[in-house]
Amino acid sequence: MIERTDPSFLSVARGTAPAELLLRNAQVVDVFNRELSMADVAVFGGRIASLHGTDAAEVIDLNGAVLAPGFIDAHMHVESTMLTPRGFAQLALPRGTTAVVLDPHEIANVMGVPGINMIMDDARGLPLRCWFTASSCVPASPLETAACSLSVEDLTSLLERDEVVALAEMMNVPGVINCDPNVLAKVAAGLTASQVDGHCPGLRGRDLDAYVASGVNSDHESTTAEEAAEKLAAGMTIYIREGTAARNLEALLPIVTPNNAHRVCFCADDRHPSDLHHHGHIDNIIRLAILMGLDPATAIAMGSLHTAQHFGLRDHGAIAPGRRADLVEIHDLSQLTIGRVWAEGCCAHSIGPSPVDWNAAAGTVHLPDQFGAHSFEIPGGEGQIRVIGTLPGQLITESLIFAAHVCDGQRVSDPSRDLLKIAVIERHGQSGTIGLGFAKGFGFNRGAIASTVGHDAHNLAVVGCDDQSMTTAARALAECGGGLCVALGEQILALLELPIAGLMSNEDPMSLIETEHALYAAAASIGSSFDNPFMPLSFLPLSVIPHLKISNLGLVDVDAFEVVTLDL
Amino acid sequence: MIERTDPSFLSVARGTAPAELLLRNAQVVDVFNRELSMADVAVFGGRIASLHGTDAAEVIDLNGAVLAPGFIDAHMHVESTMLTPRGFAQLALPRGTTAVVLDPHEIANVMGVPGINMIMDDARGLPLRCWFTASSCVPASPLETAACSLSVEDLTSLLERDEVVALAEMMNVPGVINCDPNVLAKVAAGLTASQVDGHCPGLRGRDLDAYVASGVNSDHESTTAEEAAEKLAAGMTIYIREGTAARNLEALLPIVTPNNAHRVCFCADDRHPSDLHHHGHIDNIIRLAILMGLDPATAIAMGSLHTAQHFGLRDHGAIAPGRRADLVEIHDLSQLTIGRVWAEGCCAHSIGPSPVDWNAAAGTVHLPDQFGAHSFEIPGGEGQIRVIGTLPGQLITESLIFAAHVCDGQRVSDPSRDLLKIAVIERHGQSGTIGLGFAKGFGFNRGAIASTVGHDAHNLAVVGCDDQSMTTAARALAECGGGLCVALGEQILALLELPIAGLMSNEDPMSLIETEHALYAAAASIGSSFDNPFMPLSFLPLSVIPHLKISNLGLVDVDAFEVVTLDL
Repeated sequence: MIERTDPSFLSVARGTAPAELLLRNAQVVDVFNRELSMADVAVFGGRIASLHGTDAAEVIDLNGAVLAPGFIDAHMHVESTMLTPRGFAQLALPRGTTAVVLDPHEIANVMGVPGINMIMDDARGLPLRCWFTASSCVPASPLETAACSLSVEDLTSLLERDEVVALAEMMNVPGVINCDPNVLAKVAAGLTASQVDGHCPGLRGRDLDAYVASGVNSDHESTTAEEAAEKLAAGMTIYIREGTAARNLEALLPIVTPNNAHRVCFCADDRHPSDLHHHGHIDNIIRLAILMGLDPATAIAMGSLHTAQHFGLRDHGAIAPGRRADLVEIHDLSQLTIGRVWAEGCCAHSIGPSPVDWNAAAGTVHLPDQFGAHSFEIPGGEGQIRVIGTLPGQLITESLIFAAHVCDGQRVSDPSRDLLKIAVIERHGQSGTIGLGFAKGFGFNRGAIASTVGHDAHNLAVVGCDDQSMTTAARALAECGGGLCVALGEQILALLELPIAGLMSNEDPMSLIETEHALYAAAASIGSSFDNPFMPLSFLPLSVIPHLKISNLGLVDVDAFEVVTLDL
Repeated sequence: MIERTDPSFLSVARGTAPAELLLRNAQVVDVFNRELSMADVAVFGGRIASLHGTDAAEVIDLNGAVLAPGFIDAHMHVESTMLTPRGFAQLALPRGTTAVVLDPHEIANVMGVPGINMIMDDARGLPLRCWFTASSCVPASPLETAACSLSVEDLTSLLERDEVVALAEMMNVPGVINCDPNVLAKVAAGLTASQVDGHCPGLRGRDLDAYVASGVNSDHESTTAEEAAEKLAAGMTIYIREGTAARNLEALLPIVTPNNAHRVCFCADDRHPSDLHHHGHIDNIIRLAILMGLDPATAIAMGSLHTAQHFGLRDHGAIAPGRRADLVEIHDLSQLTIGRVWAEGCCAHSIGPSPVDWNAAAGTVHLPDQFGAHSFEIPGGEGQIRVIGTLPGQLITESLIFAAHVCDGQRVSDPSRDLLKIAVIERHGQSGTIGLGFAKGFGFNRGAIASTVGHDAHNLAVVGCDDQSMTTAARALAECGGGLCVALGEQILALLELPIAGLMSNEDPMSLIETEHALYAAAASIGSSFDNPFMPLSFLPLSVIPHLKISNLGLVDVDAFEVVTLDL
């Protein structure tokens, strides 16, 4: 992209030299006033030169179509798309996304700073502009075993990079409000460099006061309007999240008013590839918001300018002279029907080969020595045990209590009550420990599924009806370097390989999506009650979201923030 | 002020330790939602800890009074107050101003970076928080002789300082849009470090496109709603200015809507001490806006949060946990009746002695060799001459044409037609050149006034009915090191000394205001048609504001940007 102060660009802006591209007769979304106005948008060197038309090498008549600024995701983990930034860009650009703020904390748990470097190197120079936040909580909690950790010094160094715009979501809320010196040192480093993203599900009252007072200035974890309104009034920018796993738009949209909309943005957080392809990304959130009754120009401003303002991204977020020519053609505003998308002024998005050698991220899945079906055994009798209750469309779980199902002195799965054995296996070649427990909600009547995507330490999580199926699934993933698997007995029913850190694939996105569909079909064939059971499975190890979770160290009571026994 | 991440502060925020101060029963202005809400505001270490009350060493019941965040001026030259930052703070704090963004370009023209250092040193540690912009245009134009200039390197170095938040108003609009390499290098330095303030009176259409495209992202010089609306839609933040010299609120307020208000702020730009004392500062603008019909909470947000957001001042602008405890008690919101003002949590504002040796800024006024009444002579005959037409309450002048008044072969003042001789004398001990011309609008029937405040080179400007009075006034200022003077014949009628760079005084503000009143009374006694004729006089040399101006090099046609002859 040309520099703003380049004379050849300013000559085009002033109208004394021809533009490269002119988009005539556009109904431009003026996100500053949140209204539409007719304009002829001149583009040169990847930037918008003028809204007053000009001579141009290429002229495209938009015939009154709406032209919106490119959409921006305020907070996302690209690893959730199972694709590299280059693969993700192929799915996101046609949806109008032209910039994202990425927190690479998934790969950081597996590979540390070298993994972050790979993501940043892959993202550099893409038509989809990738900004980053410095992952504040690697590992996410002491209640699981990650491969890597990031120190205050690591974060300070990351925060100095040009593409890093904030300290990433500070998930260790207890650490902040209880004044853990190491946690506060990270927050202080973020404040010194720029700002600090938050993550505080359910936080209210005095605990919220302390968290905000420390300098954290955003949140994307509210689930009720009251909670989000309290955070907004406390000075936080609210990112309304609508991803694959967590969907908060309907609950939070009522807080938005003309007065406060500029402090509300959109984010996906986590988004699976087939969802990206079939339903979209930020466009999906804007579309749903419009369908729920939000003024379209306001919805678009929340998906563009407001995020740019929050992070101080002055080249992004609006159709105005000097900004990046990131433009989205919209045919029907009420349905947000997306036409062409220009990124840096180009409609045909050139995504070259990655400079990254992804082989360096392979081979990250290690099973414990002497691993086998016996590894999943839970000796014990009948009696009350803790059971993780999964909830559709939510990351929060319930802490349930059921009588154990016993067979030959072993606690085993009981598909008749939908109580399935779950295991989290340390897979980074460290302790080899295995946490064991039971979960309700998956609905399998046979077989098992396994995943090396298990937030945030990304140990190997398996849930199933019998130990043999669980063993088969886990072994399949160890062999291919990670991914998602459905197994039945000794048979692999479906396998999606994610050889990059056990999290991502360098495959063509469309073929990955095909495999993804086959995977869900296989999960359905063993009785899954979720369309995509890998999503809840991947969040069951995440010990920073209430209430009962499981890591390689065992069951975790998140509210008490400690490992607890299976038996009550 | 305590660090946000200090455990003793966070304990107060969380309610586990007592606050220092509690303001109970406050109707807090929630600037994020632009509405009022009841709260008990707890303060510790100069910051707001919580809005939920707490035990506190000192409890003050506000009995339902409104509590607003401290006001912020988005753009101001402290030199216009004729006071040092410490003197200015004494007048501004009681008016609710707790932060200002200062462009020290007046003293920079006289003393360069050492002058800026003095202002910054004086401002450091004040309860009134002073932020700075790096003065981009010193000298303001090649059509006048300043004592000092700031290079790209000087600016790059200034921009690295913690208290510098932007490149200051880029007044050289022709330089930007005609791509002067030196000017664009300054803009580029501003963009690299942070952002670039603008100054573009009357700029519209393609010229505005080029100016905005270069990266300039604010303006405070609009005089019509149409002009300001065009700039807003082009992506600029609009600072509505209501100062002593220029008053744009009434013209510009109609552009403000709930959708765009977050991109509109207030600034004074220039404000004389008696105006500060009698009418106020940002409070004056908020008050007028409310009287003109703007929603009070919105007006207050424009005078606080919106400025903080524009400059990324995350400790300022709102009553919220973690922010500076800058609080303004308001008894009657409709009249903005200001009560107590807390800055960093303190109501009694402690302003200690300055660390600056102001004597180092004395003796900056030098008259040319052989200076005398003859220096003002303009030989010539009758015929059409250019005359500067001053306009009440505006910085813009008219370029008028009148027949010269001739006496003994000399063009002289003609009070009967209100055509007065004006001179600008280079006073920095450099060329000693004198620019001569005539101005209409001052209304004097005898005597003269002189000033070493003459934007932006601050040469010595004199306007009067006869050469002797002009000589007396100029000599008086040279003797005292600068200031403002009214003279009649050989008699000094009033003198306000500004020994600091010929711009400022270290005197007690209230005694300075008394002298100021005496000065205006003296001006009235010689027939001044302005309440304060020094204000228009000080802007007549400013060759970056249209249309006809005068510098030490002669009459300046600002539109053509060249020195022109007196005769047509």
